[in-house]
Amino acid sequence: MDKIKVGIVGATGFAGAELVRLLAGHKNAEITVLTSRQYAGINFNKIYPVMKGIINIRCEEYNQRTAEKADIFFLALPHKIPMEIAPELIAQGKKVIDLSADFRFADVNNYEKHYQKHKAKHLLKEAVYGLSEVYTNRIKKARLIGVPGCYPTSALLPLIPILKSKLIKPESIIIDSKSSVSGAGRSLSLTSMYCGVAESFKAYKVASHRHSPEIEEVLQKNTGCPASITFVPHLIPMSRGMETTIYAKLTDDRIEEKHILSNLSVYYKDRYFIRICKDRIPDTLAVRGTNFCDIGVKIDKRNNRLILLSVIDNLVKGAAGQAVQNMNIMFGLDERTGLDKAGYAV
Amino acid sequence: MDKIKVGIVGATGFAGAELVRLLAGHKNAEITVLTSRQYAGINFNKIYPVMKGIINIRCEEYNQRTAEKADIFFLALPHKIPMEIAPELIAQGKKVIDLSADFRFADVNNYEKHYQKHKAKHLLKEAVYGLSEVYTNRIKKARLIGVPGCYPTSALLPLIPILKSKLIKPESIIIDSKSSVSGAGRSLSLTSMYCGVAESFKAYKVASHRHSPEIEEVLQKNTGCPASITFVPHLIPMSRGMETTIYAKLTDDRIEEKHILSNLSVYYKDRYFIRICKDRIPDTLAVRGTNFCDIGVKIDKRNNRLILLSVIDNLVKGAAGQAVQNMNIMFGLDERTGLDKAGYAV
Amino acid sequence: MDKIKVGIVGATGFAGAELVRLLAGHKNAEITVLTSRQYAGINFNKIYPVMKGIINIRCEEYNQRTAEKADIFFLALPHKIPMEIAPELIAQGKKVIDLSADFRFADVNNYEKHYQKHKAKHLLKEAVYGLSEVYTNRIKKARLIGVPGCYPTSALLPLIPILKSKLIKPESIIIDSKSSVSGAGRSLSLTSMYCGVAESFKAYKVASHRHSPEIEEVLQKNTGCPASITFVPHLIPMSRGMETTIYAKLTDDRIEEKHILSNLSVYYKDRYFIRICKDRIPDTLAVRGTNFCDIGVKIDKRNNRLILLSVIDNLVKGAAGQAVQNMNIMFGLDERTGLDKAGYAV
Amino acid sequence: MDKIKVGIVGATGFAGAELVRLLAGHKNAEITVLTSRQYAGINFNKIYPVMKGIINIRCEEYNQRTAEKADIFFLALPHKIPMEIAPELIAQGKKVIDLSADFRFADVNNYEKHYQKHKAKHLLKEAVYGLSEVYTNRIKKARLIGVPGCYPTSALLPLIPILKSKLIKPESIIIDSKSSVSGAGRSLSLTSMYCGVAESFKAYKVASHRHSPEIEEVLQKNTGCPASITFVPHLIPMSRGMETTIYAKLTDDRIEEKHILSNLSVYYKDRYFIRICKDRIPDTLAVRGTNFCDIGVKIDKRNNRLILLSVIDNLVKGAAGQAVQNMNIMFGLDERTGLDKAGYAV
Repeated sequence: MDKIKVGIVGATGFAGAELVRLLAGHKNAEITVLTSRQYAGINFNKIYPVMKGIINIRCEEYNQRTAEKADIFFLALPHKIPMEIAPELIAQGKKVIDLSADFRFADVNNYEKHYQKHKAKHLLKEAVYGLSEVYTNRIKKARLIGVPGCYPTSALLPLIPILKSKLIKPESIIIDSKSSVSGAGRSLSLTSMYCGVAESFKAYKVASHRHSPEIEEVLQKNTGCPASITFVPHLIPMSRGMETTIYAKLTDDRIEEKHILSNLSVYYKDRYFIRICKDRIPDTLAVRGTNFCDIGVKIDKRNNRLILLSVIDNLVKGAAGQAVQNMNIMFGLDERTGLDKAGYAV
Repeated sequence: MDKIKVGIVGATGFAGAELVRLLAGHKNAEITVLTSRQYAGINFNKIYPVMKGIINIRCEEYNQRTAEKADIFFLALPHKIPMEIAPELIAQGKKVIDLSADFRFADVNNYEKHYQKHKAKHLLKEAVYGLSEVYTNRIKKARLIGVPGCYPTSALLPLIPILKSKLIKPESIIIDSKSSVSGAGRSLSLTSMYCGVAESFKAYKVASHRHSPEIEEVLQKNTGCPASITFVPHLIPMSRGMETTIYAKLTDDRIEEKHILSNLSVYYKDRYFIRICKDRIPDTLAVRGTNFCDIGVKIDKRNNRLILLSVIDNLVKGAAGQAVQNMNIMFGLDERTGLDKAGYAV
Repeated sequence: MDKIKVGIVGATGFAGAELVRLLAGHKNAEITVLTSRQYAGINFNKIYPVMKGIINIRCEEYNQRTAEKADIFFLALPHKIPMEIAPELIAQGKKVIDLSADFRFADVNNYEKHYQKHKAKHLLKEAVYGLSEVYTNRIKKARLIGVPGCYPTSALLPLIPILKSKLIKPESIIIDSKSSVSGAGRSLSLTSMYCGVAESFKAYKVASHRHSPEIEEVLQKNTGCPASITFVPHLIPMSRGMETTIYAKLTDDRIEEKHILSNLSVYYKDRYFIRICKDRIPDTLAVRGTNFCDIGVKIDKRNNRLILLSVIDNLVKGAAGQAVQNMNIMFGLDERTGLDKAGYAV
Repeated sequence: MDKIKVGIVGATGFAGAELVRLLAGHKNAEITVLTSRQYAGINFNKIYPVMKGIINIRCEEYNQRTAEKADIFFLALPHKIPMEIAPELIAQGKKVIDLSADFRFADVNNYEKHYQKHKAKHLLKEAVYGLSEVYTNRIKKARLIGVPGCYPTSALLPLIPILKSKLIKPESIIIDSKSSVSGAGRSLSLTSMYCGVAESFKAYKVASHRHSPEIEEVLQKNTGCPASITFVPHLIPMSRGMETTIYAKLTDDRIEEKHILSNLSVYYKDRYFIRICKDRIPDTLAVRGTNFCDIGVKIDKRNNRLILLSVIDNLVKGAAGQAVQNMNIMFGLDERTGLDKAGYAV
């Protein structure tokens, strides 16, 4: 099989660089174009010297001719730009995997309420939400994917099966998430400076983060339950990783941990990247650099409350890795292709 | 006034060392004896070279004669030993501030269920729970203090006023806490090694931590509400600091953030170490090295749910600092004495 | 005695904030004015919330009237601005302690070669180099101090006595320094971002750092030896601290470690902030947050080479702490005033 | 080609785990046995959960039958044990790659002086020093490899070509190295605890580290110059990575940076893992997780002194990666096999 020609638009941000890392080691793909407004004309491996000897491509500015250079484009751009670029790529017969929020919402009102006016509404109907394990069949046939946010990925993977099986009460869901600082991206800001991050742990956008409506829309669509969640994100002083602790009332006080574990195991049967943890507690270090999502379960019997714990690498399963997984599914490849490297034990 | 003679039993653990740091800078106290089983015969400033020039005392083994050397003893020891030592110190007319769990519980059954058989039950009735801002009056007259755990301190300070005023439903309380690794103490363990901590964030003792019954007993006693909480602690890759995010259902959907803020402000009126945050989110870096507890408030209107955020330095307000604050109160000093140094901005 | 009225010009950078921390706890000083161009009108404790309850002063823009508000001014500004401000302050009878390079060089050509044209040359003659332990007598009578750079402080303190006693060959000196990232200041830059700093260790400005001529000028003036050093700074992934390892050929192969130790001990007799380490290796953690400089000594017998090791906190002895120490000396106070708080053991 | 059957003896230390990571992704090798004394009977992926889904082998105790299970054995054990095990493996026709010091020294006296009595002297003559780029031809035919220490690797790679070409004076070499804490291994120790490592930078074993004689023996053998080096290692608060800054007097003051760069480029022509840095300074972050050694060059003209800068990942090129590279060379494979994955940009 010929290699899939891949373009990365916005290659020099953290998600873009992670796409380069993963795709450079993908046996069925070949990166043919990298774009960057800020670094046009500069070799990608100068910006990220770790890539010297791995990739040797000069960044170029995105323009009319970019579309010709690849079969599929990953858009790793700030919200708003993808909805301007995606239509022209689709129109030229290209596949598009967008990592922004622009194509995550089926309900345009929901998007416009939390982001801005949408300029490519006509594509929303066909855009598929790229939560790989949940939307597999639709992804297979998709032309346009909206890759889920990192928080939604870490929350939805454990929640969807459980809520779908009506094991928890939808109005009782609380999601307490903790993200590493790479989630804030590569833009300069005081809050991303080493001296402000080290030894700092804090919440932010308390119950007002834009990933909240994304989680609710997808939960509802997949479970039929009208979910209204309370979502609080926090920042951890580390480079990669995300942990989510979810609390919800069980619908029946006879439900035990084994039922929850079994429910998850059945739902994610044969799905390589979901590791249900029976005898250990999910730890960000155990998924670092990988596309795994580890899920743990605990019931607080006294309060008849379920606690779900999940960890992902926010740059991999929470962004670039899931994007590549979706590409694999779209092209009929084993979903693990290019995503099967072991993480670092230390 | 003569200086208070102070002994620290178990001076070489992290809480002990923090007591040394704070008391070495306390104008009304003088450290007269430091004990350590492991380091007997060695100068304290050899174990912690940062203390060279600050303190110059040789550690000695605790024995029958130790009691003579001070007016008040801080016990920074593993659970179980304090209940053997405290009675003899009290019998000799000394005051005792214990940092273990041994004198935190009024209900001996509660202690014995979660720890072990209690050997000094007769002292439990008079022992005062050293949550300084809440038990001030009892602390003034106390001979024996059980200093609260770090998690309980961070949870109780925001919760007590709110629950007492019946603003939240007691059965709905969820406490999601995150602690730095110094909370695990100085004992060697794989989970405290640098390579296992860095880039690792994870929950532990999910809904089964022994600080849970402590929180419940104190909540109930102070608010009259039978609280049954869900408590999940997590570990953050950093040296000092603790953040607690609390979720609870409001009892009335007309309650607004300003009511909660006002409730807290009134309850903690004139209490220096409680900083109610009106326009910023509590951040561990902002209390690092200090005895402050910063409390933030947010209401998730859609779900009629209150979110309380609190941060402390687990070694200061969560242990040694609160212990010193209690000593100040017991001796009629300004509670800030020795605890008024600015933390590091970086 | 009345409190010294102190102004800090450029209070919101890292060195400025450290000055605030130290002076807020100084019993003989009172901060009366804080200036900041960027944060004029904002309370200092909003910018650094750790200072809430410690200091309550609104930042203001520096202007013609600022001089009236204090007896002494600390200038924590980028190079070039102090030489514009200092003359007018001095003219109004104020004392000035400048933390930039503007008043460090006695030889204006040396300054102009490595920085820019000097606009206050007339003050260079009277400006005193604020290496507190070496220039004590001149500092006592100074109106204007140029506080040494952090690298020079860490290198000069061990080197001056040794070179002065002709124990090492001046042409053989190599200085390998390592600084934490706070040394780069609070300005936004990719190299100060958490994700670029964590797990990154690297040299920079190899043999071309502007602290090199500063070290040479001061060495030569104090020892009479024409020193030409090789200086290589590196960046450590941590917030505070600086380590310097110095290599030099011994002038005589009979020199032993005890001679070096004794030489240093004699030179720094009764100087509280210099701790000569006889049985431990200097560690940045042991000086963190303090004004100490720890110095260690080792001789590589086989190669007849001396190795000097020194550590300081770059923000304290390397900047704000030494500045305050100089103020103490200028005002006839115990040099330890305000600088006697214990560092954190953890 | 059949896959090479590989055994790892001592698989659960950091170097062992890194071997597992690299070999699990090696297309021409198959791990057939993992031994561990401490974890015998436990699945490797329970000890390192990041490996779940990557490898599924139960650790077993090393015994008489272990030899049968593989073609080649990596020994990742403390010094002294390999010299007991290697002879029996060699006797059974197996190839052995030892990561300890036991087979690094050609001169048994040198080994016995710095380690202990050698019990397998007869193998020292045929053992090959596994500095892959320098001993390539001998490695091709070796049965037994002594993999270099991490410090020697980082120092020898830049030094050998330069010293061989007599560009520097052998008696003037100073090696200032900085290692991450994983270099200390997985054994419990106070100095490896998070709270002791974070914000701590310090030297250790100053001019007395056992890697010093190793560096000297190899330097001398490869360059003909009797080198007597001064070597000072330091510890950096990070998990992976090593930086080495080398100082030496140039033999001729007409030597320029371009000559040094050219010398290195010629010596390492076509060697993938050596990256000569012409326009950037080596940074540990740029080699993290990879087998690269980045080398930088700077001349301090004023002092006619060469500064060489090198970085490696101490667990990869400094241990497991170089071991695998050697296996590749021994088996006639492309040396990059299994070592070609991109490192993380963040």
